[in-house]
Amino acid sequence: MPSPNPRESRREITGFSNPTVKYLRSLRDKKHRKREGVFLAEGLRLLTDALECGHVPKTLVMASARDPHPLIDALETAVDAAGGDIIVTTPDILGKITGKDNPQAVAGVFDEFDTSLASLDRSAAKIWLVAQALRDPGNLGTMLRTGDAVGAGGLILIDDCADPFSVEAVRASMGAVFTQSVARASWDEFIGWLRQGEGQLVAASLRDAVPYRGAPYAAPCFVMVGNESQGLPEDYEAACDLRVTMPMRGRADSLNAAVAAAVLAYEVLDTLER
Amino acid sequence: MPSPNPRESRREITGFSNPTVKYLRSLRDKKHRKREGVFLAEGLRLLTDALECGHVPKTLVMASARDPHPLIDALETAVDAAGGDIIVTTPDILGKITGKDNPQAVAGVFDEFDTSLASLDRSAAKIWLVAQALRDPGNLGTMLRTGDAVGAGGLILIDDCADPFSVEAVRASMGAVFTQSVARASWDEFIGWLRQGEGQLVAASLRDAVPYRGAPYAAPCFVMVGNESQGLPEDYEAACDLRVTMPMRGRADSLNAAVAAAVLAYEVLDTLER
Repeated sequence: MPSPNPRESRREITGFSNPTVKYLRSLRDKKHRKREGVFLAEGLRLLTDALECGHVPKTLVMASARDPHPLIDALETAVDAAGGDIIVTTPDILGKITGKDNPQAVAGVFDEFDTSLASLDRSAAKIWLVAQALRDPGNLGTMLRTGDAVGAGGLILIDDCADPFSVEAVRASMGAVFTQSVARASWDEFIGWLRQGEGQLVAASLRDAVPYRGAPYAAPCFVMVGNESQGLPEDYEAACDLRVTMPMRGRADSLNAAVAAAVLAYEVLDTLER
Repeated sequence: MPSPNPRESRREITGFSNPTVKYLRSLRDKKHRKREGVFLAEGLRLLTDALECGHVPKTLVMASARDPHPLIDALETAVDAAGGDIIVTTPDILGKITGKDNPQAVAGVFDEFDTSLASLDRSAAKIWLVAQALRDPGNLGTMLRTGDAVGAGGLILIDDCADPFSVEAVRASMGAVFTQSVARASWDEFIGWLRQGEGQLVAASLRDAVPYRGAPYAAPCFVMVGNESQGLPEDYEAACDLRVTMPMRGRADSLNAAVAAAVLAYEVLDTLER
């Protein structure tokens, strides 16, 4: 159903083979996202969060069958004002674009953010999360979400991590990709940057570690977790200012990476706020 | 390369269309698992954990190109002694069975466990995890893994949860599906069972809640989290003995379900061990 006041920036697309649909679908692929410097996010809540954090999509895609909603109207107005595109399509096509059987009513294309270490202001937060070679985009998004919850400044991705701008990571972040800074760096770049200023690097470790409860955390505290199957390289652990252990009462000797980051980050938060 | 002492129970399969391969692949589907009462687990570490916990696969599937390994030999011996089948196949076919591009060297078929509430001994552990309508098998497996880490007795699945015996959940559990009890029940069944004995039901909540740090946790403590998008129904929260809040310093008002369970369970562990 066309809006009563159709905007000039608005167009309707009903064919799967439309080049814009192909373009939008291609953004599910890392190579294309990287080339275009943009990423996809879906869902009214997520796009509204983005808007409230000052991120207006370049392109807004809406399902034509959608019910009227003041938040969608607000998104349309913002995109229109910023000179972006508004595309109205079928729920089927929207599902193809986002790769979901039950697509959300809206999706947006956003410019990728600056992910250089230089863009981070370490004094802006007491906690920062660091992930090394984290391969699972769901874990990565979950870490962003946890970072938001503990008031972290952002997430620093070391070595070859999953793409924080993949649909899966953005989805798992529940909007935190818009509130948390994200930086990508090699280990050498990171450790060089870290040692240029204040910052305590902390990792969960089995080597030469103290109990995670009551450990002497200090702000800005950088909480680091390693790859899902390998953990952190030994020399990365050795470079930490503090190594802590969490109780392991069962057979396993490790936690899921995103879980370990969260348990540790909440402990750090409690210490730093005490 | 055939073993120097080929066992009678051992057979080689090289065709994708072999009925056994079709049967094994079908176990990736919940309907077939349920009908057969079995599930698939993959990976040498996981199968070794299973064996050490007394779970011998009915069928052991191995890639023919595998390197010799004493742990694989131990598995073979155990399966053989228990009268199970040993199947040697190609890495490609093993990949098809487990749905992974880089399959592990071994996979096993196990009988499903008893998942009745009656099978649980609540006095066996101080902590139990409870999930309500948890839809993501990765979250479910992660909760099992966390349960193992905090020394929980098991995971109780309320209402319509993901299948704990799916390949994804088993994989995410990192073997904890073999160390943790799993029960499935409706809410009414669960609350009826819980109230027949000792047990404190705790949930993270925004309603009428106390801070999660320093809350009066008591064993056996049942830590409950709700559905990924809906959270817990209000009446389920109301039925809890203790409602606790975790700090939320950002825009989000909730954590990933498996993360919330872990942060809470580690706090409970600290209180109960103090």
